[in-house]
Amino acid sequence: MGKVIRIGLLGAGTVGTGTARVLELNQHEIAERVGTSIVVSKVLVRDPAKERHYLSQAVRTDNFDDILNDPDIDIIVELMGGLHPAKEYMLQALAAGKRVVTANKDVIAQFGHDLFDMAAAHQTEIFFEASVGGGIPIITPLKECLNANRITEIMGIVNGTTNYMLTKMAECGSDYDSVLREAQQKGYAEADPTADVGGLDAARKAVILSSIAFNSRVRLEDVSVEGITKITPDDIAYAADLGYVVKLLAVGKELADGINVRVHPVFLPKTHPLASVNGVYNAIFVHGNAIGDAMFYGQGAGSLPTASAVVADIMRAAQDICRGQLSSVGCTCYEQKPICPLEKTRSSYYVRLLVDDEPGVLAQIATAFGNAGVSLKSVIQTRQNVVDHAEIVAITHTVEHAKIQAALAAIRDLSVVDEVRNIIRVENGEDD
Amino acid sequence: MGKVIRIGLLGAGTVGTGTARVLELNQHEIAERVGTSIVVSKVLVRDPAKERHYLSQAVRTDNFDDILNDPDIDIIVELMGGLHPAKEYMLQALAAGKRVVTANKDVIAQFGHDLFDMAAAHQTEIFFEASVGGGIPIITPLKECLNANRITEIMGIVNGTTNYMLTKMAECGSDYDSVLREAQQKGYAEADPTADVGGLDAARKAVILSSIAFNSRVRLEDVSVEGITKITPDDIAYAADLGYVVKLLAVGKELADGINVRVHPVFLPKTHPLASVNGVYNAIFVHGNAIGDAMFYGQGAGSLPTASAVVADIMRAAQDICRGQLSSVGCTCYEQKPICPLEKTRSSYYVRLLVDDEPGVLAQIATAFGNAGVSLKSVIQTRQNVVDHAEIVAITHTVEHAKIQAALAAIRDLSVVDEVRNIIRVENGEDD
Repeated sequence: MGKVIRIGLLGAGTVGTGTARVLELNQHEIAERVGTSIVVSKVLVRDPAKERHYLSQAVRTDNFDDILNDPDIDIIVELMGGLHPAKEYMLQALAAGKRVVTANKDVIAQFGHDLFDMAAAHQTEIFFEASVGGGIPIITPLKECLNANRITEIMGIVNGTTNYMLTKMAECGSDYDSVLREAQQKGYAEADPTADVGGLDAARKAVILSSIAFNSRVRLEDVSVEGITKITPDDIAYAADLGYVVKLLAVGKELADGINVRVHPVFLPKTHPLASVNGVYNAIFVHGNAIGDAMFYGQGAGSLPTASAVVADIMRAAQDICRGQLSSVGCTCYEQKPICPLEKTRSSYYVRLLVDDEPGVLAQIATAFGNAGVSLKSVIQTRQNVVDHAEIVAITHTVEHAKIQAALAAIRDLSVVDEVRNIIRVENGEDD
Repeated sequence: MGKVIRIGLLGAGTVGTGTARVLELNQHEIAERVGTSIVVSKVLVRDPAKERHYLSQAVRTDNFDDILNDPDIDIIVELMGGLHPAKEYMLQALAAGKRVVTANKDVIAQFGHDLFDMAAAHQTEIFFEASVGGGIPIITPLKECLNANRITEIMGIVNGTTNYMLTKMAECGSDYDSVLREAQQKGYAEADPTADVGGLDAARKAVILSSIAFNSRVRLEDVSVEGITKITPDDIAYAADLGYVVKLLAVGKELADGINVRVHPVFLPKTHPLASVNGVYNAIFVHGNAIGDAMFYGQGAGSLPTASAVVADIMRAAQDICRGQLSSVGCTCYEQKPICPLEKTRSSYYVRLLVDDEPGVLAQIATAFGNAGVSLKSVIQTRQNVVDHAEIVAITHTVEHAKIQAALAAIRDLSVVDEVRNIIRVENGEDD
């Protein structure tokens, strides 16, 4: 058994505490597997006076320099979250030649490039497996196990809050507001749920996954983002009737016109491997030109699952230190591919309209679709509780995004159409 | 761009050709990612006169020494299959200090230890991702991404032939013999299907997965093996009625009495993540004490999917050569855990009996179960086409294997029981 590896932990919240707990719980296995013990030597907290579970041995400090300047600390583990000062702390740690492990999707999505450059400049490395998919191994598999492939598509259920909410809406027929309240009570949704339900959290993960999958840097502003706030129990019920489930997906595709990255709800066929990923579980589906379809499934958040990924990264960093080497792959964005605008993407769509219940309405709507070059696969018309109104639900064939928008503009102008209630992409494996 | 890495390929069958094809198809991506070109320099074949797709640049030879003694060849890729001479060739390659990549589950399951020792003794390494689950990344994730966990359970659909057959039986109600013929016609089953349908292929993969998961060497003779040959359309129909699907699983569990490793058909709840893995797809489900449940899904066989894993291993070996380092984890069997005999395992069971159709029969059977200490969760009795006969289908509560065997012995002795038609484990998450 060689030297002891000492780590400095930044943050003692859910994931920080989980990391300390896993290091203690599995300490014998970890020491045996790495060939050295790993101990939390110092921890950066807001209030050093406060006692912390699983961190009794560690020196608590509210001064980052105590950790940065400790020559015995080899690995700095950033679990504070947020952009600043997390980014600056990681840059300083790398500049000091320390290994860095982080679960911070915000910083990796926005400043990953700066961190990789700094690591390379100082012959050290940064690991970030926990930044996407919590405990699910996806960053290492993408970079090191699927690297013989040209990846053409990556689709993930990468936000547990929204997947829990959509699952509950499907199981219980509850509406959006009541499942959000329930998710908040259970601690699955934050008091301010905007980043989750609005799709921003998933967009950050889409940036990280797509940059790795396509070897080309994707920025947050390249991502089209739409959350789940407009999804109603009716949409979910229609989906079920038509053989689909509704999921919020982070999607990255390499198309003829470039890379398209987006986050939005989709109708997913019930037979798709992602369709049975329910509750707070996450999964990432990948298509490569050698492997074909593959999927990685597990808990996308939570103290111990996320710590599983953080500690694996710590173990790899520790092993590299013991072996005196760098084993990580580093930045893989060696290409600069164009971004394909949303308008050029193609998909099938679900469209739900509230219309006047009178003869000839369907003909007017079908004509409007047809004039815009959109052909329909199926149409359902149902009477509504509202007097003299009906709902028309249409599933289109695969069509360019710009065309469906043109069709909807024309349909909105029809006097018999009261409301375009929703429009949701249908992921049928035919779009490109 | 550094030196060119030259590889010697042993075997030009399905996976060998696929490997050469992926190296050619994605050569630019591979060179960019590794920082060096990888070329197939020599290939060992039975008939060097025969032309080979994707291997036109490589020198064909039927003499292994031509490859072993070529100082320009850094990596030997064994894709011949079978125990001998594959094992001997790999040992010689490692002894010569070359890196070895293999997809050979037979050799890894039986002689993995010797290969790891030889690699360690000669400061080189052996990679074997493709030996389990075809293209699915599972060996690297287990060894390097889930290594912060104590893994307590690993369950896999690791044989595509039998999963295709069971899926077809469930979808079409076909019987065993006709789906086997169809699988053979489609090339999903061999002319002699014994190793697949009898469970031996899955058992070898169970050995590899369990040895890694539990850090203790499991041998093929430690595995209880039962194939799918006794599964009938009736069993599958009863399963569907009761909310289950029938799957052939490779199972490894760490129990109080040691490690239990087995291959057998199971009733799996329809809601289990493995239940929707259909056709030739494979998936490996893992439970760890930090990550909780995780699953890895993809194509478990086939030329390009398997080559995806083989080439990833080649790329890692090439990168290690360029960096002048060893990055692989090597043998992880640092413990010697006892093997828990099948008799001590606990499970719920499905039991199907052909009985005389007369009053009091169910009472006799229930009494026999009760006397053996087996309590029943549900019982179905159905009349049969055979005059004066009925079928009784019982699902037991969780019970020790030895007790269900004792109950069945007593039931077989009852004069009203004509036949014990099948007994299949029910994987309900309660067994241990």
